[in-house]
Amino acid sequence: MPDKPDLKVPDSAVPRLAQYHHALMEMAEGVASSDDLARVTGFSAAQIRKDLTYFGQFGRPGFGYSVPDLKQALSRILGTDKAWSVAVVGTGKALSVFGDLDRFRRHGFRVTACFEKEPDKNGAWDDVPVYPMDKLGDVVRRENIRMAVLAVSEGAAQRTAEILAESGVQAILNLTPARLQLPERVAVRPMDLAMELEKLSYRSGRLGDR
Amino acid sequence: MPDKPDLKVPDSAVPRLAQYHHALMEMAEGVASSDDLARVTGFSAAQIRKDLTYFGQFGRPGFGYSVPDLKQALSRILGTDKAWSVAVVGTGKALSVFGDLDRFRRHGFRVTACFEKEPDKNGAWDDVPVYPMDKLGDVVRRENIRMAVLAVSEGAAQRTAEILAESGVQAILNLTPARLQLPERVAVRPMDLAMELEKLSYRSGRLGDR
Repeated sequence: MPDKPDLKVPDSAVPRLAQYHHALMEMAEGVASSDDLARVTGFSAAQIRKDLTYFGQFGRPGFGYSVPDLKQALSRILGTDKAWSVAVVGTGKALSVFGDLDRFRRHGFRVTACFEKEPDKNGAWDDVPVYPMDKLGDVVRRENIRMAVLAVSEGAAQRTAEILAESGVQAILNLTPARLQLPERVAVRPMDLAMELEKLSYRSGRLGDR
Repeated sequence: MPDKPDLKVPDSAVPRLAQYHHALMEMAEGVASSDDLARVTGFSAAQIRKDLTYFGQFGRPGFGYSVPDLKQALSRILGTDKAWSVAVVGTGKALSVFGDLDRFRRHGFRVTACFEKEPDKNGAWDDVPVYPMDKLGDVVRRENIRMAVLAVSEGAAQRTAEILAESGVQAILNLTPARLQLPERVAVRPMDLAMELEKLSYRSGRLGDR
């Protein structure tokens, strides 16, 4: 196992690290080569080897990487080795298209609470409790929730994000089109369907005419 | 205006181009400097200037970029200057958290059909017609739909994607955790909540302890 990971990984490598981690999650324990990882992720074996040198020496040349070691090291670097407690704010059920709760748990994310404007069982994501929106701050503090998926209406996004930040949330995945203004200490990441469609459009344009 | 855009833009630049485009969409017509774009997108002005040199000469040093010209050129590069006709397969309504249909139209994506296993008005996204899943191939062909958002269950993902590909769809945004096996000519882009949470976790880890 490598030493304490060096966190000076360039930002551009992080999406790739997350993809290596995902690929490893689906591989059998044992050994994987950079070629194996290249086949599953679509990145070149050279790129993969280069990325993995950022945080120590994994595997042996001509032998490959230990799948469990590399998986563990990547999840430590990504900060998912200790499970995050996650709140889904807005419509929880809508997120079930992205996978079931077990899948998220395996990746280090335990969804512990959903919040809805008018909570009923329909808004629930499996067995996660659904609270009314006006309990947001209380429940987040009580349950020590540190991460949130923001899936409210665009108009309610900024105010809701502020309540989350004031209640101790450190990281928000923002599914709304709103641009959030929050204190520096809160990490915000937009997840934007329109932008993903644009990237897809670009890729498709390169594959041929339409 | 620059000449025909050079499509040899490195893949790593495309997410940034999409973000520049998004930022410009919200700016007043007129002139924007690379510093203006840097403030809104979070990328450095130097990075922005470098990216924009890939496809010709925009703006004048010390003067800035023409917002409408740059917006148009970026949308041409991203392939969204001609509107895509898009099908949402699975649950349409769930996607409304990402914005309203007008927003997607402004970005070059016209949602023309939704498909549901058991269609009822509840599955509709505003006024988009909802069809039963067994009409998928017919409607996609009839309406010349070229892009799809795949939001079905993981188990149904591969088969549904095959029907889309056979019916002329060229680009699929895959919201399911399934890894799709499709002909080369079909562009597939995963949009994965678990992976976005991992990237967020990484960013948050760099902002401080939790």
